[in-house]
Amino acid sequence: MKKSLVALALAAAIGGAHAQSSVTIYGTVDAGIQRTTHVPNDATLVTRRDNNKLGFRGVEDLGNGLKALFQLEIRFDPDTGALENNVRPLFQGQSRVGLQGAFGTVRLGRGLSAYQESSLAFEPWNGLPNVAGFQPDLMVAGYTSDPLGVTGNSANRFSNAVFYNSPVWSGFQLNVTVASKEANGNQNPIIGKGTAAAPQYTANAMASANPYSVSATYTNGPFAVMLGHERNAIETKLYSVAASYYAMKPLKLMASYQRQDQSHTMFTNTDTTSWLVGANYSVGVGKILLGYGQKHPDGVIKTKQASVGYEHSLSPRTYLYLDLSLKKMPAAATATDDVSRRHYALGVHHNF
Amino acid sequence: MKKSLVALALAAAIGGAHAQSSVTIYGTVDAGIQRTTHVPNDATLVTRRDNNKLGFRGVEDLGNGLKALFQLEIRFDPDTGALENNVRPLFQGQSRVGLQGAFGTVRLGRGLSAYQESSLAFEPWNGLPNVAGFQPDLMVAGYTSDPLGVTGNSANRFSNAVFYNSPVWSGFQLNVTVASKEANGNQNPIIGKGTAAAPQYTANAMASANPYSVSATYTNGPFAVMLGHERNAIETKLYSVAASYYAMKPLKLMASYQRQDQSHTMFTNTDTTSWLVGANYSVGVGKILLGYGQKHPDGVIKTKQASVGYEHSLSPRTYLYLDLSLKKMPAAATATDDVSRRHYALGVHHNF
Amino acid sequence: MKKSLVALALAAAIGGAHAQSSVTIYGTVDAGIQRTTHVPNDATLVTRRDNNKLGFRGVEDLGNGLKALFQLEIRFDPDTGALENNVRPLFQGQSRVGLQGAFGTVRLGRGLSAYQESSLAFEPWNGLPNVAGFQPDLMVAGYTSDPLGVTGNSANRFSNAVFYNSPVWSGFQLNVTVASKEANGNQNPIIGKGTAAAPQYTANAMASANPYSVSATYTNGPFAVMLGHERNAIETKLYSVAASYYAMKPLKLMASYQRQDQSHTMFTNTDTTSWLVGANYSVGVGKILLGYGQKHPDGVIKTKQASVGYEHSLSPRTYLYLDLSLKKMPAAATATDDVSRRHYALGVHHNF
Repeated sequence: MKKSLVALALAAAIGGAHAQSSVTIYGTVDAGIQRTTHVPNDATLVTRRDNNKLGFRGVEDLGNGLKALFQLEIRFDPDTGALENNVRPLFQGQSRVGLQGAFGTVRLGRGLSAYQESSLAFEPWNGLPNVAGFQPDLMVAGYTSDPLGVTGNSANRFSNAVFYNSPVWSGFQLNVTVASKEANGNQNPIIGKGTAAAPQYTANAMASANPYSVSATYTNGPFAVMLGHERNAIETKLYSVAASYYAMKPLKLMASYQRQDQSHTMFTNTDTTSWLVGANYSVGVGKILLGYGQKHPDGVIKTKQASVGYEHSLSPRTYLYLDLSLKKMPAAATATDDVSRRHYALGVHHNF
Repeated sequence: MKKSLVALALAAAIGGAHAQSSVTIYGTVDAGIQRTTHVPNDATLVTRRDNNKLGFRGVEDLGNGLKALFQLEIRFDPDTGALENNVRPLFQGQSRVGLQGAFGTVRLGRGLSAYQESSLAFEPWNGLPNVAGFQPDLMVAGYTSDPLGVTGNSANRFSNAVFYNSPVWSGFQLNVTVASKEANGNQNPIIGKGTAAAPQYTANAMASANPYSVSATYTNGPFAVMLGHERNAIETKLYSVAASYYAMKPLKLMASYQRQDQSHTMFTNTDTTSWLVGANYSVGVGKILLGYGQKHPDGVIKTKQASVGYEHSLSPRTYLYLDLSLKKMPAAATATDDVSRRHYALGVHHNF
Repeated sequence: MKKSLVALALAAAIGGAHAQSSVTIYGTVDAGIQRTTHVPNDATLVTRRDNNKLGFRGVEDLGNGLKALFQLEIRFDPDTGALENNVRPLFQGQSRVGLQGAFGTVRLGRGLSAYQESSLAFEPWNGLPNVAGFQPDLMVAGYTSDPLGVTGNSANRFSNAVFYNSPVWSGFQLNVTVASKEANGNQNPIIGKGTAAAPQYTANAMASANPYSVSATYTNGPFAVMLGHERNAIETKLYSVAASYYAMKPLKLMASYQRQDQSHTMFTNTDTTSWLVGANYSVGVGKILLGYGQKHPDGVIKTKQASVGYEHSLSPRTYLYLDLSLKKMPAAATATDDVSRRHYALGVHHNF
C-alpha cells in the first residue's frame, strides 16, 4: 500500500499546526563510467554526467493570483554519496523562497544567476556541467559567477541574492539577480592587481561591488534569443548573446557568443571571447547532441572543443547516454603548448 | 522461503519491507534583507530572521494509548544553502525518537532542553533567534546550554540526552532533560578557574557533571507561568521565572526574570541577571511585536534592548515581516564603553 | 511556444516537469543508553545501537520486465543529529541508480559490497554495527572494504562501484561488485611494506588494483549457505563461508568462518582467521539473540566475544532492546596482555 507522497502528505495533515502543504520531492540520479585523459589520476571512473539532485519544493496559493513558493535542492556525488565535490553547501542546487504574482516572481536566497539560468537553453548538453558539455567553460568564456566563494564551489550561482523574473510580455522576459556584498567564505586571497603581501581581495573578502546578473529573452515560434550580462564580486564582467532555432520539430540549432572582461583584476590580456554552435536532433527514442566551440583569451592559446552525445530513452524519466569529446586546450594556464584531452562517458540518467 | 537471501535483501532494499508509514515533511523558509550595525563586515545582508527548517516526523499508534514518535529536523541558511552557520550538525533542529503514553513522553537524542523549549512562549518574538528578538541573549541572561559543543554550535540544545514531558495535570506540566557526560566536540579549552597551561576544561572535555534542565509550567485560562532551572556541562546554572497574560484575546503580555550563576568557572562577577517585558498585539492580518529588556552581569556594563516588529499575514502559512531594534551593549566583553547597535529587517516567512 | 524560455524553466522548476513519481521515504531512528568499558572517555552514553537512516528510494516500471531504480540513504547519529561519526558522506548508507530485468540487477554508485551485504544474514545481530554484534570485526576477521577511504569512514562499503546481482536460479544467486581505482580521500599514508618516508600507499593514493567483491548464495527450504570473497584497494583479501539453518520455525542457527590475507601490505603475520556461531530465537513478541566467536590474527593474542540480546516488539515497526556483551581482546594492537570489555545497551528502535 504505497500511496504517492503528496497524498500521504495531505493525509498526514492532522499532526501539524497548519494544514500540510503538498511538498513535492524530486530528483535526479545519474551515474556512469567515464574516462578523461590529461587529468590528475587519469583513470576509468564511476562518476556522474549530470548534476545529481534530491529536491523539495512547494507552491502555496495565496489568492488573488498571488503565490508563495520555495525550493530546496541537495546536490550530491552518486559515486561516493557525498555532497558535490565534498565541499559544497547542503542545498547547493538552490535554496529560495519568494512570491509570484502579476508583477512576476521575486525570490530570495541562493540559486543560478539570471544569466546562467537563461543560458542553459542555448547549450547543446542543456547546461549539464559535464566534460562533454560546454558549461561552465566555453559557454561563459571561462567566467565564474562566484569568485569569492569557497574553493571548489559552484561557478554559476549567487548566494545572498534577490532574484526577479518578469512576466512574459509578448514573448519577452527580463530576469535580474542582485546579490549583497557579504563575504562568502573564500579561503584564498585573489592577488589581482595587488601583490602577494597586499592582495586585491584577501581571503574571505567582501565583494567590492554588488554582484548582479541580467538576462533578456525573446521567444517567437521556433525562434528564441537571449542577451545576458553579469558582473561578479570582483567586478569581472560577462556579455553574452545566444539564439536557438527549431529548423524542424526534431532539430534544434543553437549558437552563442560570449565576452569576459577581467580588467578590474588584470593589467593585461583582460578579455576572453568564446563562441559555440550546437544541435539537438531527436530520432524516435534517441537524441543526438552535437557541439563545437572555441575560447580565445587575449594572448593565450585558444581552446577548441568538439563533442557528440547520444541519449537513448527508456521512458520519459530514464535514459542511457554515450558521450565522446575532444578538447584541444593549453597544457596549463600559462602554457604555450596545448594538449588534446579525450573524454568518453557511458551511463544511466534517472529522474524521479 | 524460495527466494535467496540476497534476493530478499534486495526486495527489502528496493521494494519496501514494511508498509509506508505516514512520514510528514514540514519546514520553514525565511529570508529577507537585514542590516545590523557594529558587527564585523557591516553590510546590508540577504539572510534569515527565523530558523530555516526541513523536517521529517512521524507517529505510530502502538495501541493501548501508546505511541512511538520520531522527529528529524535539518536547519540551514537560505542565503547560502549551507547548514546553519556552516558548522552545525545535519539535524541541528532535533533528532529524537521515543514513546508517548499515559506516563507522558520520553524521547532520546538531541533537541531543545526542557527549559529552553518552555521559555519560547514567553519571548515576544516567540524565540526566533533573531537580532530583534531576545533569544539567545537577554531571555537567558547570556547563558548557553552547550558550552562544550563545537564552536558556533547552538546555544540552547542538549545532545546525548533523555527528554521527559509529563502529561498535563489540571494545567500543570513538568519537563525534564538529562544529558550524558559525553564529550561533544568542543575545539577550544575553557580556562575557567584553571590556567592557559592547565585549563579547567580541555578541548573536547567531558562534562564535569550530568547537564540537566527542568521546567514547570502552569496554564489557567488566559494566564501562564513557568519556572525553569538548568545546569550545563561546565556546571553553570540558570534560574528563570516567566509569565504571560492575555489581557484581551488579541493582546498577549509577557514578562520574565533570569539569573545565571557561573561560580563554577569564575572567581568573581559570577552572576548575571536579566529581565524582559513584551507584548504581541494582533490586528486583522497584522501582528505587532514589542519587547524591552535589560541584562546586568556583575561588574560589567548593562545591556539594554528595545525592539518592535510587524508581521503581515498573506495566509496562515506565509507572512511578511519588518523589525526594528536598538541594543545598547558593551563594545567588547571587557569594555567600559558601550555601543548602540541598530538593526533593520524586512523579509518573507513561509511554512510548508 | 508562447512562453519564454525562462518562464518555461520556472514552470519546470516549480510546477513539476513530469508527474510526481512514488518516492518512498523510509528510515530508522534507534537510540538508547549504553556503556562500554575500556574505551576512551568511558561513560554511560546516549547513543545508537543500529544504523540511523533517512532514505529515499523509487522504482520505475519501464515495461517489458525492465525497471529503473534508485536509492539514497542518509546515515546519522541520533544523539547529536550529525552525520555518522561526523565525517561520513551524506548518503553514507548508499547512493545507487540502476536497472533491473531478466538479466538481474545492475547498479552504479556507492553501497555495501556484494560480500558484505550477503554476510549480514549470517550474523546473529543481523549485521547491526553495534558493540554487542560481530560486525565489523569478528564477522569479517578484522577486514575492511575501504582502507583508502576518509579516516572514520565505513568499513564495509565500496564507492565508485558497479554492483551486479544475478536472478535467483533454483535457489542460487551470484553477486559481484567491482570498483574503479579512484582515490577516495584517504588522509593518512599506509606504510605497509614501504617506509615512513616512502609509504606503500601515500595519502589519497589510488587503489593498486580494482577492488572487487563476490558472493554466491544458495537457499533450500530452511537451509542457506554463502561463499564470499573480496579484495580491497590495498589488495588485502578476504575469504568467507557461512551457513544458516532454521532448526524450528522460530529458531535460526548461524555459523561462519573467515580468513583475511594481508600479505600485500605485511611482511609477517599476514593471516587472520575468525569464526562465529549464533542463534535467533523468537518467543511471542520477544526475540533472543545469541552469539559467540573468536578472531585469531597470526602471532597476536586471540579476541573472543560472547553476546546476548533481547528485542521486545511493540509493533512490527518498533521494539525495545537489551544487549549484554563480553569481549576479551588485546589491550592494544601490539599487546601481549588482553582486557575484558563489558558492554550494556538498553534502548528503542523505530522504523518508519
